[in-house]
Amino acid sequence: MRIGKVIGTITATRKDERLTGSKLLLTQPINSDGKPSGEALVAVDTVGAGIGETVLFATGAASRHAANQPQSPIDAAIVGIVDTIDLAT
Amino acid sequence: MRIGKVIGTITATRKDERLTGSKLLLTQPINSDGKPSGEALVAVDTVGAGIGETVLFATGAASRHAANQPQSPIDAAIVGIVDTIDLAT
Amino acid sequence: MRIGKVIGTITATRKDERLTGSKLLLTQPINSDGKPSGEALVAVDTVGAGIGETVLFATGAASRHAANQPQSPIDAAIVGIVDTIDLAT
Amino acid sequence: MRIGKVIGTITATRKDERLTGSKLLLTQPINSDGKPSGEALVAVDTVGAGIGETVLFATGAASRHAANQPQSPIDAAIVGIVDTIDLAT
Amino acid sequence: MRIGKVIGTITATRKDERLTGSKLLLTQPINSDGKPSGEALVAVDTVGAGIGETVLFATGAASRHAANQPQSPIDAAIVGIVDTIDLAT
Repeated sequence: MRIGKVIGTITATRKDERLTGSKLLLTQPINSDGKPSGEALVAVDTVGAGIGETVLFATGAASRHAANQPQSPIDAAIVGIVDTIDLAT
Repeated sequence: MRIGKVIGTITATRKDERLTGSKLLLTQPINSDGKPSGEALVAVDTVGAGIGETVLFATGAASRHAANQPQSPIDAAIVGIVDTIDLAT
Repeated sequence: MRIGKVIGTITATRKDERLTGSKLLLTQPINSDGKPSGEALVAVDTVGAGIGETVLFATGAASRHAANQPQSPIDAAIVGIVDTIDLAT
Repeated sequence: MRIGKVIGTITATRKDERLTGSKLLLTQPINSDGKPSGEALVAVDTVGAGIGETVLFATGAASRHAANQPQSPIDAAIVGIVDTIDLAT
Repeated sequence: MRIGKVIGTITATRKDERLTGSKLLLTQPINSDGKPSGEALVAVDTVGAGIGETVLFATGAASRHAANQPQSPIDAAIVGIVDTIDLAT
């Protein structure tokens, strides 16, 4: 999984019907130092995440398992909310 | 899913027969600031997207689910048209 | 799918037997401006592509579907020959 | 598989229930020269890895096989602890 | 598939039991000009490759097919030894 920060929400009226009812969160991947890492992705929320939270997200088939929609167009999903990152010292 | 902008169309007369009838749209991934991010991809349209629109696209098996062609050579598909991106402030 | 240009051929006498008989084409991914984008890949030809042609290629399971070899070691395949790329103006 | 170094641990109280009981290790991919390579990932530990160890980790479906949880949201897992890397001279 | 050069071997006593007996080769991806391209990966050898050889390697499910271990933690495998790369002139 990657670590990300939820930075926004996406509205899409016209979309694959299997995405209806899913909360689509714009998620900025971050590195171990908290800095942005690569392109922001749109992930389906499966854990009640909110704006500004640091999350774990999964991509590929893992995200469809998370959403319990194995035959869906989902390829990214938030699967956890990060409480703490303990870095080795 | 990634956010992209439809920037063109692709014509390919000679192609895998499972792509026949699919609209192939050249899609430039964009970041949360609207700037291009990485290489433009060719995505199958599944939602009636058009040139210039901001879209959500999926890659891998998710795109074949979107196209309802699980055994096809598709690896990218447009799955939604973005109305708004609400960035946290 | 990604757009690429066929820039060479690969000969490999010792290889997985499921690759025997496949034409292995060195394919340079290109961006919407025709410039090289990232690393050249070796793709199995499924459409009769030749040196110098601009092609569509798929990666992952999509490439095995293209080759009709779902249980093979293939992870990239040429699935179309590009006639025209019409960029929005 | 990629080589990585375990640099921290992640705590996430609210998460997909299929991740409960899994040790989530922040893993920094490293290159053949031991230098960091790309973004740190969160991998499920399947071999008893600890902070500071050099590990092999797998991504995608391979990680779910490693965890023996094929239908889970896991997309990265530590699958070995590296004893030695012998570079050709 | 990608082209790589075998640059070393990995020893890992503690690992997923499905990797036992597999030769783990550190493989540096190379580009069409022979220069290193990205991070070195650890690939399972399926064709009797050796140090210094130029090889074809596959990633993802393709690598598990190559190793004939579809349910294993393998995500990269060497599937061919490159005799010649003929670049178009």
